Amino acid sequence: MYEGIVQELIDELGRLPGIGPKSAQRIAFHILQTETFDTTRLAEILMQIRERVRFCAICGNVSEQETCTICRDPRRSPATICVVEEAKDVVAIERTREFRGLYHVLGGAISPIDGIGPDDLRIRQLMQRLADGTVTEVIIATDPNLEGEATATYLSRLLIQPGLTVSRLASGLPVGGDLEYADEVTLGRAFEGRRLVEN
Amino acid sequence: MYEGIVQELIDELGRLPGIGPKSAQRIAFHILQTETFDTTRLAEILMQIRERVRFCAICGNVSEQETCTICRDPRRSPATICVVEEAKDVVAIERTREFRGLYHVLGGAISPIDGIGPDDLRIRQLMQRLADGTVTEVIIATDPNLEGEATATYLSRLLIQPGLTVSRLASGLPVGGDLEYADEVTLGRAFEGRRLVEN
Repeated sequence: MYEGIVQELIDELGRLPGIGPKSAQRIAFHILQTETFDTTRLAEILMQIRERVRFCAICGNVSEQETCTICRDPRRSPATICVVEEAKDVVAIERTREFRGLYHVLGGAISPIDGIGPDDLRIRQLMQRLADGTVTEVIIATDPNLEGEATATYLSRLLIQPGLTVSRLASGLPVGGDLEYADEVTLGRAFEGRRLVEN
Repeated sequence: MYEGIVQELIDELGRLPGIGPKSAQRIAFHILQTETFDTTRLAEILMQIRERVRFCAICGNVSEQETCTICRDPRRSPATICVVEEAKDVVAIERTREFRGLYHVLGGAISPIDGIGPDDLRIRQLMQRLADGTVTEVIIATDPNLEGEATATYLSRLLIQPGLTVSRLASGLPVGGDLEYADEVTLGRAFEGRRLVEN
């Protein structure tokens, strides 16, 4: 145990995800001893962040305005919506530069064990966006785990309507990975989704 | 990239040691979305920490007063000083409950590659503490790496004086470890320092 405020800082840092006691201690001493680390800057951001950040009224992505930069961008196609669990997923997909449509952030996935059902997610808001017929394709991009799969299956059934194409991201071996290290479920999916080689 | 302040928080967190971009993102969203996490509390600590924390005028340990709680504790023996590199090491040794003397924090180790020589460490202050003859034993507890060993060797020579016992912590196999995973230097030390089994 350290004296007073040093221990308080270690305790607060230790409450953050993925930071154990050893890391918290190392970070606290770094903050304490590194002149170039701007403690005031981090403190100011912490004071402001919850006030300044809201969620986009259309898609649920993080935003500092009523709607997010993606929903406001006139170059994005309003005909395609990619459904994801979290705002983090939006950033991950944006990084691929593969997708030029809009997003819909559900705010999580169906998980009976955590007491999260369809009504706890932004599914009603998704249905409202589909009502006027502008959207012709929905890409379901939930996480490839139990909760994500359950959510995808639920949505696939809900979204059956005339003039709407619904697709899901491909499952398979990660690029750059070793086949021998792939788990059996991933490998099974890779077999299931195998593609014909064209000559 | 996220909009505005979210990205700013991720960037600031990413400047802390051991926090990569993925962790920074995870922590930022935790801070943003977890109501129970007290952002104001952490901000206040960050604003105050550098002002409130000073270093003990006697041993160099972190302290909120002129001298630290250990140096002020009348139950600690003033005859023994344990020399460590950092304040973190004091906490580690305190946790063992094996040592009831005082400490001396050097503030680092001799490292020519980083331009740190004996004069950059609190060695002069250590010699001053030994001047009046109260201290009869110095335990050198620098890190068991190149810099720590160099510092220990330097100190061992410097501390040769009548009436003063100088010792170093034992090197050897870590308790609970596997012999086959020990590196050759550690294993060599364990052989060198082997003890007779008493019947």
